[in-house]
Amino acid sequence: MANSKYAYVRSFELPDNILPGTYMIVRLDGHSFHKFSTDHGFTKPNDETALRLMDAAAIQIMQAYPEVTMAFGESDEFSFLLRKSCNLFNRRSSKIASTFASLFAATYTYRWAEFFPNTPLQYPPSFDGRVVAYPSSVEIRDYFSWRQADTHINNLYNTTFWALVLNGNLTTAEAHGKLKGTSSSQKQEILFGQFGINYNALPERFRKGSVLYRQEATASVETPAAGVDNTPGQGSITATSIVPPRRPRREIVVEHCDIIGPAFWSSRPSILGGQPSPE
Amino acid sequence: MANSKYAYVRSFELPDNILPGTYMIVRLDGHSFHKFSTDHGFTKPNDETALRLMDAAAIQIMQAYPEVTMAFGESDEFSFLLRKSCNLFNRRSSKIASTFASLFAATYTYRWAEFFPNTPLQYPPSFDGRVVAYPSSVEIRDYFSWRQADTHINNLYNTTFWALVLNGNLTTAEAHGKLKGTSSSQKQEILFGQFGINYNALPERFRKGSVLYRQEATASVETPAAGVDNTPGQGSITATSIVPPRRPRREIVVEHCDIIGPAFWSSRPSILGGQPSPE
Amino acid sequence: MANSKYAYVRSFELPDNILPGTYMIVRLDGHSFHKFSTDHGFTKPNDETALRLMDAAAIQIMQAYPEVTMAFGESDEFSFLLRKSCNLFNRRSSKIASTFASLFAATYTYRWAEFFPNTPLQYPPSFDGRVVAYPSSVEIRDYFSWRQADTHINNLYNTTFWALVLNGNLTTAEAHGKLKGTSSSQKQEILFGQFGINYNALPERFRKGSVLYRQEATASVETPAAGVDNTPGQGSITATSIVPPRRPRREIVVEHCDIIGPAFWSSRPSILGGQPSPE
Amino acid sequence: MANSKYAYVRSFELPDNILPGTYMIVRLDGHSFHKFSTDHGFTKPNDETALRLMDAAAIQIMQAYPEVTMAFGESDEFSFLLRKSCNLFNRRSSKIASTFASLFAATYTYRWAEFFPNTPLQYPPSFDGRVVAYPSSVEIRDYFSWRQADTHINNLYNTTFWALVLNGNLTTAEAHGKLKGTSSSQKQEILFGQFGINYNALPERFRKGSVLYRQEATASVETPAAGVDNTPGQGSITATSIVPPRRPRREIVVEHCDIIGPAFWSSRPSILGGQPSPE
Repeated sequence: MANSKYAYVRSFELPDNILPGTYMIVRLDGHSFHKFSTDHGFTKPNDETALRLMDAAAIQIMQAYPEVTMAFGESDEFSFLLRKSCNLFNRRSSKIASTFASLFAATYTYRWAEFFPNTPLQYPPSFDGRVVAYPSSVEIRDYFSWRQADTHINNLYNTTFWALVLNGNLTTAEAHGKLKGTSSSQKQEILFGQFGINYNALPERFRKGSVLYRQEATASVETPAAGVDNTPGQGSITATSIVPPRRPRREIVVEHCDIIGPAFWSSRPSILGGQPSPE
Repeated sequence: MANSKYAYVRSFELPDNILPGTYMIVRLDGHSFHKFSTDHGFTKPNDETALRLMDAAAIQIMQAYPEVTMAFGESDEFSFLLRKSCNLFNRRSSKIASTFASLFAATYTYRWAEFFPNTPLQYPPSFDGRVVAYPSSVEIRDYFSWRQADTHINNLYNTTFWALVLNGNLTTAEAHGKLKGTSSSQKQEILFGQFGINYNALPERFRKGSVLYRQEATASVETPAAGVDNTPGQGSITATSIVPPRRPRREIVVEHCDIIGPAFWSSRPSILGGQPSPE
Repeated sequence: MANSKYAYVRSFELPDNILPGTYMIVRLDGHSFHKFSTDHGFTKPNDETALRLMDAAAIQIMQAYPEVTMAFGESDEFSFLLRKSCNLFNRRSSKIASTFASLFAATYTYRWAEFFPNTPLQYPPSFDGRVVAYPSSVEIRDYFSWRQADTHINNLYNTTFWALVLNGNLTTAEAHGKLKGTSSSQKQEILFGQFGINYNALPERFRKGSVLYRQEATASVETPAAGVDNTPGQGSITATSIVPPRRPRREIVVEHCDIIGPAFWSSRPSILGGQPSPE
Repeated sequence: MANSKYAYVRSFELPDNILPGTYMIVRLDGHSFHKFSTDHGFTKPNDETALRLMDAAAIQIMQAYPEVTMAFGESDEFSFLLRKSCNLFNRRSSKIASTFASLFAATYTYRWAEFFPNTPLQYPPSFDGRVVAYPSSVEIRDYFSWRQADTHINNLYNTTFWALVLNGNLTTAEAHGKLKGTSSSQKQEILFGQFGINYNALPERFRKGSVLYRQEATASVETPAAGVDNTPGQGSITATSIVPPRRPRREIVVEHCDIIGPAFWSSRPSILGGQPSPE
């Protein structure tokens, strides 16, 4: 057949399977989202609607791929945890990373108008993805601590920075200069002393990011949308499916809670596989 | 800093750079597109509008990434060629594959309503991506020959199959049975003898797929859209940018021409690097 | 400098680091050792002297690389276990595999005459090496069980095969035919019924392979050599160093004991890391 | 069978095949050879006998692996070129690197006494190996230029350094200090002005390293050995086999010639595959 004489080119496709028996984390990052957020007038330092849209895209990933036991998002990034025993796409790294990044960006685009009814999407966004393997639960806990600590550090900086710029009448250069080398407590003092802002009273969503996991269904709830009153920090919101999930047994919960301490993990052992999971 | 004690988890991110000095091909494939095409009522055996939407998404990739010198698409897949000297994302495999798959799916979603104004998009599509390295232009030519030969083989089969089903009143199982083991010429005889269809008179788009490349600008033209009369096979259509391209020097042309023979390549030497290979 | 214009070729050296936090096993296999053993007149089915030379080469590896906590050898292969935290050669796969294979083959050659004083080495032997990562102690235990079960299966087959050939006057083809499809107990019955050989009374070295690990020094002992009476199965032999080891704290012990059951491991916790695994 | 429940551990062996259609270079480097050369009293700055032993080990590699078309050696390193079409060990990186490093070290050990009859080998040496892929002949030429330029730079430095130490009565620290920042011509002036040494009259072996390739056999010759008068620089020496080579059609030549310029390559097109090779 005409095709067979060319088919040898397939032999150049080198395998990129992830080591078996390890946890996999898929991290997605927005591509050029500084520009994207400016072009679409996102509120500074945090745009809650944009963050909710990120959550919705992450929920779509978790509905499509039941192998994901947990996700964490902040700013324009999201991380997804896959079980040690997960054999999705035969653990091919590029296939997993590209499929997740693809579905995430398509969902973000698909649901944009629902979250931003008055702001047209000017162009399609994109996200890059990577898969990282971790051999034990110790590193998984530390990975999520790393991301949540990053959320705190960035949010405190950005909150103080934009207070200085928007309310303190500093230029962005002046604000950066004033914050250079300051400690966390010094930034909190600036916020409180100069602007009356108690950092710890800010919404947990901004300070702690979004934590998504699966929970036994107790009641029917809605997918988060811009018009729905899901006040951050007041509790959990859950999602129903847009498309029929492959194994729709457990609901996906979105919280904005601490995941650095042990409490979150010890009360949800199935996330790390500490007990036999029904999935 | 609180973050630093966790930052060691970054050391688990193993590099996946593609060998320097090689051509890279990024191939994207639709995820579960058999179901997607059924759910959205695509015309069988070929839905021209859906193929044009694929082209539009590929044009978006080429506008965003000037390193792409050529692309080829058929059905629910698209392949993009990157130069040997290309250093995009430091040649990181997952980053390239995921970003391309992400932008492609988001563009497909973003422009859906323009191409299918009367068919709502029911859920976001996704594509997987992979990067394959090829050391020389010989393999690149053979790669694209492989894909275009595949286009021909699949289209001839599908055209005959759907003629038997839609016009010949065969069940799908009967049609598959009838075609089993038939040669290309036997399928063409069925098409002509039973249905009066001259296979070689079918649109070149269906028989040869879409070939995209860059050409010196001569006139301003529009992005292909469903309502625009860009009859396939009658010549080239070109595209203007949705977002400002990074190096907006050359227009992207969509053709449906033969790329197995040498003529296409010898008249466009810049696609493979613009200089005769020493090998 | 003249060199700098060529130094870009270094950028083609792609990294091949093993995932951090995983155990590494380096397995060495003799290259064309069927021919090598014939050329040098090794006793069938087992040549004890040749096995002792293998042990000596493995001891050399463990003396040179204190990161190795254990080794297991049978026939013409040896496997070395490296700790999870081991950072030898920055965990570069090819560097570890090649250095171990190189030192092993050189030691085998270097000490040949000591073990085979009457058999000249006709040509230098070689071994290939590979590094395999395992995330947890469960897989490490299973890895060594896999190799020791293989030792038993091969040895029972070979012992019966050579009894049939050397004492039963069968051709090799007849012996293979007679053994085809037989169970372990059937082979043992042939051995005992036809040749009066009680398989379980054969030397443990042949049935269980060589297990090397480190032990707190209690007395000075010698490197195993052909002339030294280290009867297999009667206890442990230990080794002193040829070259000064980097951390000469613990002696290397050679045993021929069971490593499939838990006893070996539970009484030597430092081999797998010295602390109970959280998983 | 008892073995099968453990055999899953094989699935952790991830493939490491080198991209097809590329040249492969296997570079071996001596492990701790500074110490090794001191322990064995090698002549400074160059020990011709030790270099000849390196050549002999490289010849053994080329005899065992006819896929090697050329090799280049200097100091304690050797590089081997494999054809683009070479499928040795299915192009598995660790297997190639480890086997070459292993055979090289074993040969070095095996033939030591022949080259150094009066200097006992105190311990077995070892070499590490790596495989690097290069897509075109341009990079291969530049690779070997890189190594030969390195030979020149190192040899000029070492020759001047040891002249200052051995004949100029400088301490090693003083010699390093005097040479710091000097150009090539300044070093040559020191050599000539202070010690009457004309650098360009030194043996080509020291200045240009060893170049090994295959040549149509014209006459029977001997493997280089310490006692044989193969004066470097006066022409070619060739080698006969220690073990029967797999395809013993062409003799291996050792020269000490320039490989940076085009002459060497243009007159031996088969090295880079420029013409169909009989092998």
